[in-house]
Amino acid sequence: MGEALNGVKRTIMCGDLRESHIGNKVTVMGWVQRKRNLGGLIFIDLRDREGILQVVFGEAINNEAFIKADTVKSEYCIAVTGDIVKRESINENMPTGMVELKGENIKILSESETPPIYIKENLDASEAIRLKYRYLDLRRPDMQNIFKIRHRTAKAIRDFLDKEEFLEMETPMLTKSTPEGARDYLVPSRNYPGMFYALPQSPQLFKQLLMVSGYDKYFQIVKCFRDEDLRANRQPEFTQVDLEMSFVEQDDVISLNERLIKHVFKEVIDLDIKLPIKRMPFAEAMSKYGSDKPDLRFGMEIKNLTEAVKGCEFKVFNDALANGGSVRGLTVEGGASMGRKDIDRLGEFVKTYKAKGLAWIQYKEEGIKSPIAKFLKEEEINAIIEKAEAKVGDLILIVADKNSVVLQSLGALRLELAKKLDLIKDKNEFNFVWITEFALLEYNEEEGRYSAAHHPFTMPMDEDIEYLDSDPGRVRAKAYDLVLNGEELGGGSIRIHDTKLQEKMFNVLGFTSESAWERFGFLLESFKYGPPPHGGLAFGLDRMVMFLAGTDNIKDVIAFPKNQNAFCPLTEAPNVADEKQLNELGIEIQKTEE
Amino acid sequence: MGEALNGVKRTIMCGDLRESHIGNKVTVMGWVQRKRNLGGLIFIDLRDREGILQVVFGEAINNEAFIKADTVKSEYCIAVTGDIVKRESINENMPTGMVELKGENIKILSESETPPIYIKENLDASEAIRLKYRYLDLRRPDMQNIFKIRHRTAKAIRDFLDKEEFLEMETPMLTKSTPEGARDYLVPSRNYPGMFYALPQSPQLFKQLLMVSGYDKYFQIVKCFRDEDLRANRQPEFTQVDLEMSFVEQDDVISLNERLIKHVFKEVIDLDIKLPIKRMPFAEAMSKYGSDKPDLRFGMEIKNLTEAVKGCEFKVFNDALANGGSVRGLTVEGGASMGRKDIDRLGEFVKTYKAKGLAWIQYKEEGIKSPIAKFLKEEEINAIIEKAEAKVGDLILIVADKNSVVLQSLGALRLELAKKLDLIKDKNEFNFVWITEFALLEYNEEEGRYSAAHHPFTMPMDEDIEYLDSDPGRVRAKAYDLVLNGEELGGGSIRIHDTKLQEKMFNVLGFTSESAWERFGFLLESFKYGPPPHGGLAFGLDRMVMFLAGTDNIKDVIAFPKNQNAFCPLTEAPNVADEKQLNELGIEIQKTEE
Repeated sequence: MGEALNGVKRTIMCGDLRESHIGNKVTVMGWVQRKRNLGGLIFIDLRDREGILQVVFGEAINNEAFIKADTVKSEYCIAVTGDIVKRESINENMPTGMVELKGENIKILSESETPPIYIKENLDASEAIRLKYRYLDLRRPDMQNIFKIRHRTAKAIRDFLDKEEFLEMETPMLTKSTPEGARDYLVPSRNYPGMFYALPQSPQLFKQLLMVSGYDKYFQIVKCFRDEDLRANRQPEFTQVDLEMSFVEQDDVISLNERLIKHVFKEVIDLDIKLPIKRMPFAEAMSKYGSDKPDLRFGMEIKNLTEAVKGCEFKVFNDALANGGSVRGLTVEGGASMGRKDIDRLGEFVKTYKAKGLAWIQYKEEGIKSPIAKFLKEEEINAIIEKAEAKVGDLILIVADKNSVVLQSLGALRLELAKKLDLIKDKNEFNFVWITEFALLEYNEEEGRYSAAHHPFTMPMDEDIEYLDSDPGRVRAKAYDLVLNGEELGGGSIRIHDTKLQEKMFNVLGFTSESAWERFGFLLESFKYGPPPHGGLAFGLDRMVMFLAGTDNIKDVIAFPKNQNAFCPLTEAPNVADEKQLNELGIEIQKTEE
Repeated sequence: MGEALNGVKRTIMCGDLRESHIGNKVTVMGWVQRKRNLGGLIFIDLRDREGILQVVFGEAINNEAFIKADTVKSEYCIAVTGDIVKRESINENMPTGMVELKGENIKILSESETPPIYIKENLDASEAIRLKYRYLDLRRPDMQNIFKIRHRTAKAIRDFLDKEEFLEMETPMLTKSTPEGARDYLVPSRNYPGMFYALPQSPQLFKQLLMVSGYDKYFQIVKCFRDEDLRANRQPEFTQVDLEMSFVEQDDVISLNERLIKHVFKEVIDLDIKLPIKRMPFAEAMSKYGSDKPDLRFGMEIKNLTEAVKGCEFKVFNDALANGGSVRGLTVEGGASMGRKDIDRLGEFVKTYKAKGLAWIQYKEEGIKSPIAKFLKEEEINAIIEKAEAKVGDLILIVADKNSVVLQSLGALRLELAKKLDLIKDKNEFNFVWITEFALLEYNEEEGRYSAAHHPFTMPMDEDIEYLDSDPGRVRAKAYDLVLNGEELGGGSIRIHDTKLQEKMFNVLGFTSESAWERFGFLLESFKYGPPPHGGLAFGLDRMVMFLAGTDNIKDVIAFPKNQNAFCPLTEAPNVADEKQLNELGIEIQKTEE
């Protein structure tokens, strides 16, 4: 059993001690990072949230404390009182390295067994162990730094939005299916056995209702839930910075949000973002980068080679064009020397994106080298080189297929090449871009109908509304995503606030009037009573913190994350439930047939 | 279909216009509170989040706008541009009452049907209608004011705790049963069919783990969940201000939190709370006020009359004393004139608290009047009067029973009398008190064992630890509640951070070592690795906002609350679930036998 504090008070944090404190008597409390007994002197590196301080015990300083200090081990929790003195051998690598504490009194607040993981930066332990002993993993200074950044990020967001007269308002967790269309987490109801609440995938419907209610500017930092198979950097519960504004158009929402982001990045990592952030229409992002979240830290745009090969005798190209597809390529600067094996690997890579293959042309000093050269006339090859803007020494990589396959595979190949060839020179670059003019609808080939690209409340662009019936695929939306270094940081839209237009949208989406009314009736009903024009946006807070903290693992920015099976190795949730409680809820567990 | 903004921008809020704006051209947007057509002039009261502005349209100002303005009705959403001028007939009751807007241009942004409830303060509509049309109910200025208060309250809390170097950290929503012991909401798992997450009743275990992890000072404003039958002012999901600190003792936690409360009440309602807040041991609160959350805005303490009636011949009193109980009473100043019917009603009242009856003594000018006078000697009656500190004209109300019944019924009666007799003179008084030295354990007669009064991690008071085995009921806890005007605003404790003491606690509570380990094993395990002394507290944010906003209905401070059946009349949650999804979760709905 450890000693009690009994009125002993900490006077300062270990990590805060500096030369200016020399001569002060202080009391610090923390954990033993390491202990060295050099005969007559014992050195303890004492760690708290703010840093590490060297504490020295000696027979000559205080013999009782010296003897007690000798009993401590790593991760013991102790309190030490004594004078701050100048250190004999200064440690330039530690902020506290000019000073040390002469230990006159030590309390052992609690003991520690040998921890199963090291409490140090850049730990190389398995994820399973880190999650099981999360309370030790979270002791590591790099993890503590991340959660300081997370706190400061949320604080900066709230401070900014408060100044802009947004009201933070809470929306229900126990609610009804929201319109995102992913799988909901369900919560059985005891009052209505056999009925279920859904945990929200977003506060979308509620924030729109709050605009109808006249709250004018709403935001919330809020947990959202999706019961989807977990890919890397997905968690079943995640945190959104959700906001909505009334009496605004797209430019107003974009402007507010880029000022928000500028404020946050300045406050948290002292980065100056130049406003306005550039914008790029969705169509351009797709044709140049094969992605709605292009990474603009490097060039290598996709080149359309269709014109160059029109009428050629190469069957693969011809078939693609005949089926309404296209032929496009990437030009790898200085890539002409890339080996055959490497190129073959890239060919395998694009196949995972449904491309049938990868054609290539090495444009060498001595001439063209290409497996497809024999199918093409010289002027066709020259036209390709011209369209591809290739120079001597470059490599042209070509995909021919229907457009979606060509763009997606070349978009992915572009990112793969950037990694392989180390094309991103400035690792500290933050390259922001707004993607705008998204397609309102996506054609779902399986179901033979259009579905909402964003969600069914997104406002079409005024000039495209006329095509809603005649050519739905052509209609662009007042929707916008903020993309950073090839990742979506957030996205939103101007919403429909007109019952008739909203019902037309549901028609186009193949909802019957009843099914739409059943799911979203309360929103449609609210639109009968003077809804204001409104729009908003949601950022992923977890991803924002990942950028600010410089980690690419979402589990690093969530204190108690789930593993890939949505299981928590620390608490062992999910777990069995009481039969009695299941009866109260009116549900039972299905027998598995074996 | 309404008109689009088309680049028209709001320049100021309706409620913000003052005399200083005279001569400015402005654009405002909002809802039509009312319209009056006085022949050549149309007056519209236009409402937004900040207030109401008079807008005037006239043929002479702009005839086109005048004609259009005549088509609007209540709750139409409109935008108006024009000059701010001095109003002819000043309205002293409105902050904007010095000015009006001459409407030169009007856009009808959306129309409104006649709303089913009035958009006005102090609405007298049924709760069912208010919740069904919550988006209209939330338009009412008094509701909007409450949510501004709620926003400012959360902001003030965060600002204060940020300055005090607390880190706001998020804990999981999908987790395991927490130790409060109320019924959990369950969430079926798809990855582990037949297993369930629990929604947290509090972040208790996680915040203790964060202390073990060295985060030092944690807080979170967070949703918590309890699936209990809803009494008034209970909601299935509620919001806690949850905090925890390391290396502290009780006084440190109390001091920090009273400074927090002082800051919040000053920021939000400009109230000056004098610190330190008074403290009262639990035993004193119970004996004087029959409550662990005494309302100290009035006196009328419970008087112990046991000594006065010891050995008397009145069987009711004698039986109570013989069974180890007591005889206690309340003295109602000037109550001797209370009529027999009123007294009988009080008798019925105490019976709902299990008292068998209410004895009474009217101490009148002309002598004693009491149905029990015949059972008592004159000196016994005099002794009662003395102990009761009654004066001529007073009424003494007496309950005899076992102590718990006596104190609870008299405590409730005291509050009932305060209401009936209007004893709380200053309705604006905020009377805070810390209740300390709570009993650590409560004896559960049904189960024949002790259970934790607070939760099983609460630290016993040092001087009482020795009684944990011999006399558990005597052990007091390092626990503290902050009480305001008879309501619990928050509570917390210093926690056990020693594995051995924690295991002893589980023994006393009748947990087997296995069952304790199964439920809380990860916390016990973490205590092996140098846990710091720690303690904390949680406030109910909803209740805090109720005080700050001056409402006694929790539904007024939650934007989208549930009704008494945990049902949301707006969204109709809970609702049916998809058969397919239930299959994925491995659960089915029990057939009801009919």
